[in-house]
Amino acid sequence: MGIEREVAIATSKADAGTRSPWKTAEERTREREQLRELKREAVLLAAAQEFNARGYHNTTLEAIAERLNVTKPTIYYYVTNKDEILTEIFRTGCAALSKAADEVDNSDLKGLDKLAAFMRRYAELMTTDFVMNVTLLEDTCLGPEIRAEVREIKSSIDRRFRTFVAEGIRDGAIAECDPKMAAFTIAGALNGIARWYQPGGPLEPPEIAETIVNLLVEGLRVR
Amino acid sequence: MGIEREVAIATSKADAGTRSPWKTAEERTREREQLRELKREAVLLAAAQEFNARGYHNTTLEAIAERLNVTKPTIYYYVTNKDEILTEIFRTGCAALSKAADEVDNSDLKGLDKLAAFMRRYAELMTTDFVMNVTLLEDTCLGPEIRAEVREIKSSIDRRFRTFVAEGIRDGAIAECDPKMAAFTIAGALNGIARWYQPGGPLEPPEIAETIVNLLVEGLRVR
Repeated sequence: MGIEREVAIATSKADAGTRSPWKTAEERTREREQLRELKREAVLLAAAQEFNARGYHNTTLEAIAERLNVTKPTIYYYVTNKDEILTEIFRTGCAALSKAADEVDNSDLKGLDKLAAFMRRYAELMTTDFVMNVTLLEDTCLGPEIRAEVREIKSSIDRRFRTFVAEGIRDGAIAECDPKMAAFTIAGALNGIARWYQPGGPLEPPEIAETIVNLLVEGLRVR
Repeated sequence: MGIEREVAIATSKADAGTRSPWKTAEERTREREQLRELKREAVLLAAAQEFNARGYHNTTLEAIAERLNVTKPTIYYYVTNKDEILTEIFRTGCAALSKAADEVDNSDLKGLDKLAAFMRRYAELMTTDFVMNVTLLEDTCLGPEIRAEVREIKSSIDRRFRTFVAEGIRDGAIAECDPKMAAFTIAGALNGIARWYQPGGPLEPPEIAETIVNLLVEGLRVR
């Protein structure tokens, strides 16, 4: 996500250049906001990596700052404490998955093709630093209120899978099954990617996504 | 596993009764050992539950003892410290999965049937208190040596899946695929059970196992 934003900032700079060498106040504000968001995400990613490597309780804000080569006060500019960091990590990670579901849902795809497209997007997101680290984090460290919020966000993604499966059953492309169990099975297989994926392996993320989606769609038994 | 042992102890008592009302020294020793193992497993299960509910670092030996209605010195009779508990939890849980793989491997089943049988056993184990809690535990709290041991045990189960998939491809029942990716996909879907399974739900463990195995074997697309 960070890289997408950097490209967006670079593009908006280039656009501005064709009109005037000076940026408008609006452009400067937008760039500042984008840069702040980019840095906030870097803080969240560094924190998620530290939490996964060392456990939530063993991680200090100093260690997160060190990973980013900044001081602790710089971190406080983006987040107020460790609890807030953990909550924001879950919110940001789940938002990326929800966005992918929305985009697929708003496309012209139907039934099994729509489900497969979301599965591919979901699988590829699992190989990104941010979503991978969110998936590996346990929510046991969260207070009851925030934990309930995180679980509701996760449920909303589960509902997307169930809806897409049910649509596919209705239009006849997906075999009769319990959409709830199918959603659990699919999410389990795809979330697993976060546990075994290593960048630099023999398969690139799109190939991994394609292979797993094919296995789930076609099944192990020869057709 | 605990219940199986209790039945075994009761049965060995009944057998002894038909021969003599007094137990032999050997029988008494065996019963003592079985009871000790049963209690050790109860300590490990209580610990795994506490670690999952509160996080490893927030869990004290006192809390584990309290869950079992015993004192802390009683716990020390079975384990020496929290690190050992965590290692033993992983060893015991993975041993249950390995045993299931051995039993299926020593049966007359072949290829896809063998794989499906192991998948069913694995899925059912995921709904048991012990294996469920082991699966939910993170190994980040383990020291590097023990972590390496735990990862090797987990790898050995992954190799069983790959071997069974490869056998099924050779005999023509499983469609051509990368056994490594198939093993990851299957394990991800099955390990996921530990995250969503709730005792008392509409489906019993054997039905859950059957449904998921069927989805993975036949695929989502109608045949």
